[in-house]
Amino acid sequence: MAVNLPPPDPAALHPVAGLELGVAMAAIRKAGRKDLLVMRLAAGAAVAGVFTRNRFCAAPVLVCRKNLGNKIRALVVNTGNANAGTGSDGLQRARQVCDAAARLLKCKPQEVLPFSTGVIMEPLPVQRIVAGLPQALAARSDWLCAAEAIMTTDTVPKACSRKIRISTGEATITGIAKGAGMIRPDMATMLGFVATDVAVSQRILRGMLGRVADRSFNCITVDGDTSTNDSFVLIATGAGPAVKTAKDLKILEAGVTEVAEKLAQAIVRDGEGATKFVTVRVERGRSEEECRRIAYAIAHSPLVKTAFFASDPNLGRILAAIGNAGVSLDADKVDLHIDQVLVAKRGGRNPAYREEEGVAAMRKPEFTVRAVLNRGSAQAVVWTCDLSFDYVKINAEYRT
Amino acid sequence: MAVNLPPPDPAALHPVAGLELGVAMAAIRKAGRKDLLVMRLAAGAAVAGVFTRNRFCAAPVLVCRKNLGNKIRALVVNTGNANAGTGSDGLQRARQVCDAAARLLKCKPQEVLPFSTGVIMEPLPVQRIVAGLPQALAARSDWLCAAEAIMTTDTVPKACSRKIRISTGEATITGIAKGAGMIRPDMATMLGFVATDVAVSQRILRGMLGRVADRSFNCITVDGDTSTNDSFVLIATGAGPAVKTAKDLKILEAGVTEVAEKLAQAIVRDGEGATKFVTVRVERGRSEEECRRIAYAIAHSPLVKTAFFASDPNLGRILAAIGNAGVSLDADKVDLHIDQVLVAKRGGRNPAYREEEGVAAMRKPEFTVRAVLNRGSAQAVVWTCDLSFDYVKINAEYRT
Repeated sequence: MAVNLPPPDPAALHPVAGLELGVAMAAIRKAGRKDLLVMRLAAGAAVAGVFTRNRFCAAPVLVCRKNLGNKIRALVVNTGNANAGTGSDGLQRARQVCDAAARLLKCKPQEVLPFSTGVIMEPLPVQRIVAGLPQALAARSDWLCAAEAIMTTDTVPKACSRKIRISTGEATITGIAKGAGMIRPDMATMLGFVATDVAVSQRILRGMLGRVADRSFNCITVDGDTSTNDSFVLIATGAGPAVKTAKDLKILEAGVTEVAEKLAQAIVRDGEGATKFVTVRVERGRSEEECRRIAYAIAHSPLVKTAFFASDPNLGRILAAIGNAGVSLDADKVDLHIDQVLVAKRGGRNPAYREEEGVAAMRKPEFTVRAVLNRGSAQAVVWTCDLSFDYVKINAEYRT
Repeated sequence: MAVNLPPPDPAALHPVAGLELGVAMAAIRKAGRKDLLVMRLAAGAAVAGVFTRNRFCAAPVLVCRKNLGNKIRALVVNTGNANAGTGSDGLQRARQVCDAAARLLKCKPQEVLPFSTGVIMEPLPVQRIVAGLPQALAARSDWLCAAEAIMTTDTVPKACSRKIRISTGEATITGIAKGAGMIRPDMATMLGFVATDVAVSQRILRGMLGRVADRSFNCITVDGDTSTNDSFVLIATGAGPAVKTAKDLKILEAGVTEVAEKLAQAIVRDGEGATKFVTVRVERGRSEEECRRIAYAIAHSPLVKTAFFASDPNLGRILAAIGNAGVSLDADKVDLHIDQVLVAKRGGRNPAYREEEGVAAMRKPEFTVRAVLNRGSAQAVVWTCDLSFDYVKINAEYRT
């Protein structure tokens, strides 16, 4: 059950100059699976990150936030254990991972970023991670292998790559991601890493990261639950062409956004129990903020999500969700479309609408719900999936 | 599937002096079922109401909001059709119901409050309602019959009654309710009516209504979806003893709150697919507002709700939901209890906690999740149910 696209073609995942990948099997939770990834960065690489706003954020998130003030030489990612809800002991263990990596890489511990995903509230098995580091550092892995190494309950690896041409030459953007919000009981976390070989300042990269996140990982929802470990990191190694002009920057941002958007969508497509991939687009609002609120109100409503699952173009549910967004909108101006079918017009049922058309549109595994507010020029988009029997099954039966 | 209490005993539902109930079968949607209720009020009755904040609110809600400025002589409630999403035509039809009732009752149309619940986006069959009014007005129905007449997808009638003693004599409080949020696709709406025979001013009643609603109907959630028709009305007929002292008022408010709370809980107990009735209590917060936000974050999390269904004391999910409430809390101060079991202490797993204890507590059909923030003295409570296979089944298969 998923609306996955075909798996990424390893040949289409371009290496990023200035970044080396190494994967190991460290038996963190189970033996015989890739569970440790190290990304080594060239000296001078710029790195920016955004993290979960969950107040119970994990220990590695706290360490990342602190270390991001420094130059970063390596990222260490483990699966099998989230090191979340582990208090000061968890913080110490996250730092021990940085210490061990720094010793091997001959850099400072604060130049290492740690990431963890997996079981919550169990002590991080630091010794196994430390023991696995030499193997990871000796390996020369590709991006597909890296994408596989960060999977937990994902059913497919998630990776995407693009070439861009800027004024100083051709550059590469490649990224990997895992998860779908709080995917499973003790298997939380969305992680996203996007790397490019361009040379660009830390400051510019940081500004770009916020905009990219708002157009990719911040536009997705499976069940509305934000995990304790969510992280999205953008890396520019500087080993490739330099960003010189405003146009270069625009091309870079468009490329990074495209890769991040594809990765974010891949997470929703692989959402628990998902049978539909739904784009919710809200247009002609007064502000992007109100459009986003309405889009999320639609995407989070359990009644709307079960209607998606049932291919039931239930107008009352979608309009009621719009009305519940906490936006003081003009209800009698709202139009509602499912793909090309105008189902509601000016706040009421479109007289020309025939239910068969709505059902036909919603039967497809992918469709767009488009709400037009008709009172401004702002817009927003959210990608989501349906709420199926399997969502309940997966989440209810995980530990029982 | 429901966690209902035994059905109300008709003998325990006390009549309210100054209020007459009449029920009819008007064949509004289906023949042979009670679907029309008229409540006639003595001259001088005080009436206060609170209504849905959904921007797509139904036509009768608009009429009620307007008419509540006047003295009210009758309430007309129909099931089978919600008269929502029906635009100006719907508004006209709601007014036609008031006109017809006013003619028969020899009062003004603006002294009548209309309520509708049922299918959304279909024209209200005014003629059938008008044709049924004489039958309803001729009938002398009891409260159980009234509770049955407002049911749509409810599996049990919901009614509650109390006697109170104030300084001027014994008074009665009796109420009925229906629904559970947006219960089903086209069968929305929560309606609550609580009546007492005390004499009390409109102004005092209005103030009381807000506080009572915040401690009853505003403390429940099944799926977080607010319907287009939600209404809660408080009636004081004035045919009984008068409220004279501050103590009288306190006794009245306590009685009304108790009845409203029982009705609100009955709605959750009858929630779609509910197998658990869960009290979420957040204590020792800085403000009631932050406690409510956290309680709702727990009660709305699909991951927490599926964990309830599975009797799975999943600490990570509950703590993550608390962390997601948008409250800048001190995560390392939070304690979490399931009934008497302390599962998390100061933001982390309680070392003495054994999972069997948590499972045993959650296996029961009713239990309390108690989060203690340890940073103030405010508290809040929310009643909710679990998210089961049947919720998805009911909502996905309703129309397909």
